[in-house]
Amino acid sequence: MAKASLKRSPLAPTQFPAMPSIAGVRLATRACGVRYRDRTDVALLEFAPGSTIAGVLTRSRTASAPVEQCRRHLKGGKARAIIVNSGNANAFTGRRGETAVREITAEVAKVLDCRTAEIYGASTGVIGEPLPYDTITKALGALACDLDPAGWDKAAAAIMTTDTFPKTATRKTEIGGVPVTINGIAKGSGMIAPDMATMLAFVATDAKLPARVLDAALRRAADRSFNAITVDGDTSTSDTLLLVATGQSEKHKAVRTASDGHFRSFRAALQALLIDLACQVVKDGEGASKFITIDVTGAATTRGAKRIALSIANSPLVKTAIAGGDANWGRIVMAVGKAGERADRDRMSIAMGGVTIAARGEAVADYDEAPVALHMRGTDIHIAVDVGIGRSAARVWTCDLTHGYIDINADYRS
Amino acid sequence: MAKASLKRSPLAPTQFPAMPSIAGVRLATRACGVRYRDRTDVALLEFAPGSTIAGVLTRSRTASAPVEQCRRHLKGGKARAIIVNSGNANAFTGRRGETAVREITAEVAKVLDCRTAEIYGASTGVIGEPLPYDTITKALGALACDLDPAGWDKAAAAIMTTDTFPKTATRKTEIGGVPVTINGIAKGSGMIAPDMATMLAFVATDAKLPARVLDAALRRAADRSFNAITVDGDTSTSDTLLLVATGQSEKHKAVRTASDGHFRSFRAALQALLIDLACQVVKDGEGASKFITIDVTGAATTRGAKRIALSIANSPLVKTAIAGGDANWGRIVMAVGKAGERADRDRMSIAMGGVTIAARGEAVADYDEAPVALHMRGTDIHIAVDVGIGRSAARVWTCDLTHGYIDINADYRS
Repeated sequence: MAKASLKRSPLAPTQFPAMPSIAGVRLATRACGVRYRDRTDVALLEFAPGSTIAGVLTRSRTASAPVEQCRRHLKGGKARAIIVNSGNANAFTGRRGETAVREITAEVAKVLDCRTAEIYGASTGVIGEPLPYDTITKALGALACDLDPAGWDKAAAAIMTTDTFPKTATRKTEIGGVPVTINGIAKGSGMIAPDMATMLAFVATDAKLPARVLDAALRRAADRSFNAITVDGDTSTSDTLLLVATGQSEKHKAVRTASDGHFRSFRAALQALLIDLACQVVKDGEGASKFITIDVTGAATTRGAKRIALSIANSPLVKTAIAGGDANWGRIVMAVGKAGERADRDRMSIAMGGVTIAARGEAVADYDEAPVALHMRGTDIHIAVDVGIGRSAARVWTCDLTHGYIDINADYRS
Repeated sequence: MAKASLKRSPLAPTQFPAMPSIAGVRLATRACGVRYRDRTDVALLEFAPGSTIAGVLTRSRTASAPVEQCRRHLKGGKARAIIVNSGNANAFTGRRGETAVREITAEVAKVLDCRTAEIYGASTGVIGEPLPYDTITKALGALACDLDPAGWDKAAAAIMTTDTFPKTATRKTEIGGVPVTINGIAKGSGMIAPDMATMLAFVATDAKLPARVLDAALRRAADRSFNAITVDGDTSTSDTLLLVATGQSEKHKAVRTASDGHFRSFRAALQALLIDLACQVVKDGEGASKFITIDVTGAATTRGAKRIALSIANSPLVKTAIAGGDANWGRIVMAVGKAGERADRDRMSIAMGGVTIAARGEAVADYDEAPVALHMRGTDIHIAVDVGIGRSAARVWTCDLTHGYIDINADYRS
């Protein structure tokens, strides 16, 4: 039933980092046959006792059963395990979906000897089909035996659906001079009919951080990374981003609030790591042939700047123009206009590839089209819009809309 | 510069109405060479003295210069003329755009011997290029000579950009037993790089109606017609819908408010005519191969029902699935979820082509896929979603997302 493997995205990074171990984290994967054949499809992440957790979940009103479980368990702020499967999203599966989550969680708690409230599930894949949870529960004993601190790359591969490459990132940073590490894996934007785009990301650090500090740091960093990307404007039922801190690094100065001065490096590293992962998701967007960075400045508020940037990023007319290598700034004007945010038409300016094309509400009479045309032929496109109102700014990332997107998503279900 | 003529939409109606005259309305068209060669591109609509007008305009924050003029003049509620050009939207053209509107308006006022405040302009086509208004002003004398009550079809053709067919509709109705007629023309959804989708519609009746009654009737009818369609979710800088009443029919009982009992037939006819025109616009959507009607019921509010319906209608995943003939209800669940409106996942039901596919939050175990597959192979697709919360409903119309959309919009500008 699964589609033949897709060609690797032309935007895939050419190099991936060597993933170090994180003290207090072990991972294992297994081919359970949830839906796919001949590939791993379940990952178990185990964390040392005392690990804290924070999470950001989809705001969809039709969220999946495991998302609802994460929402409940995150209130406790403690984590011992994350159990993930690909191939089936366990979404819109009614009571059977809740049963599946309960059965899997009970089995994880049993093999790891921990409380169910410290276990987090995530599922990605087909919607509306019952999850064959026994394929997972009966594999948990073996998974527990295979747990390995070096399992990051394998876990990134096991959670893929039709992603064309596994997504990993790592950062070294410090808290009060003591070195700590952050690792992350993500999946997103591949698709199999009748699956849905689903973003999952799991990040862990050996730093010792209270759950409320983790939560504050994660929300802020997610707003400027995973919440600032879009492929097609469609929101998954399953989006899940979890951050775990094991507290197993060398002892560092305690962090009491996310605004502590000695926590600044960590926050910057976390932000950079999440942007790295989020941009990998965009670069694996269905059919993507160009990666697009959109900067909006001069807005009344940061929220307004982001809404305008997302309006540009989600506009099919802007995305198809870029696919065609066309510096069609008229469509950008349109997308700014429809965002519903304040913008001064007569003070607005637009630049592409660093060249100002329109300023003060009209086309620049004699702008040099040659460098812009060259920029548009590349794969890394930059759009900058100043809306002429205030001092707030936002940056978002997206990809273009090509025939590949239609090919991937309009296939007959077979 | 204009693209070679597009193939007629496969969804184009096979028959168009014979357009009757409307007492008090005369029309003329001319090939002025604003941008296109060898075709008409300017239409002048003249109305008898004493005609009233109401309008609904784009909410874009980057609205075109003629839209801003309409907004000002509509406050007076009087109309003597509408002057329309295709080929250039006169949007994002700064002061030069305002000058163009002023010069054209002054010339219309001169040749028709009326006040400038009774003149309404509309422009559609390329954005950001100065409108060569002298091509229009110097043709106005000849246009005034050609005014003809039978000019409706020619006017519908002159306002096209890359529409693949002219859009006309007419209805006979009555007010207090006296027959009155409503005629309308529209353009929309064709596109030439670097143009934008732009919807224009002009409707006239010989009924005698105060401007505030016209306004109330128009807003209500527009909400359920032009404001309930979407091709790609992109909002034009130029959307303009104007309704003129000449008062030249036989004398009928006065209408004091839009809720008068004897005004009900007229309102129903206006609603039907606007839905007719709006659906013609959808059927000419770029690359459209299927026409889609979406009914949402069981919502908490009408506004919420419409937001959910538009979320489904604008979802690229839903639209590509339908292009591929795939009854992919999982993507509909996703689109309901992301709308941000109340929906009860566990009471939701989804039907396609009249067959219930999912109910009470999960797939119907033994639903008959054969009639659904047959329905999906047709060109007229029906989706019904009950969100299980309340009693409010909404209907919207859209088209599918195909390779044709990418072809039309990703072409290199030449």
